[in-house]
Amino acid sequence: MHVTLVQVHVKPAYINDFIAATKRNHEASIREPGNRRFDVLQAPDDPARFILYEAYVSPVEAAAHKETPHYLAWRETVADWMAEPRRGIPYQGLFPA
Amino acid sequence: MHVTLVQVHVKPAYINDFIAATKRNHEASIREPGNRRFDVLQAPDDPARFILYEAYVSPVEAAAHKETPHYLAWRETVADWMAEPRRGIPYQGLFPA
Repeated sequence: MHVTLVQVHVKPAYINDFIAATKRNHEASIREPGNRRFDVLQAPDDPARFILYEAYVSPVEAAAHKETPHYLAWRETVADWMAEPRRGIPYQGLFPA
Repeated sequence: MHVTLVQVHVKPAYINDFIAATKRNHEASIREPGNRRFDVLQAPDDPARFILYEAYVSPVEAAAHKETPHYLAWRETVADWMAEPRRGIPYQGLFPA
């Protein structure tokens, strides 16, 4: 399992817009054949900070996600709402296999 | 959904032992009624660093995990293998609900 932890920091004025747009991305992403998880997390001490927990069967499926219409639409929609650039950290998922 | 990201740094000599012990913890934890995920991740650039991605229905079930025999056995087994204290960061899981 290939996992990416994406750290997101949005401008405070766009927190609710970001949640709505990311919910749509979540709902479409979990329907991708190679997707295992697409969890959207919010930091309890700073509601402008999020983590996207994206798990795919392999790096191939993770890369394919970035070509989907829902990802490309989400990327464009949220672009101006970022307080700083997103940072994706890759991990090897050991369990579940 | 209540999520905890646990950052783990083990002594290099115990990487394989840690993986074996944590696999047992994973297998028992995903059978807890309130568990949603118990993913074990390894950093590709430093195999001594791991993340445990633990998701429970609510903080109540997350707390109950820490009373289970498999958690208590794991905690004792890995205690001397830590290179530094573990750090658990809580998040509110927005999606899936």
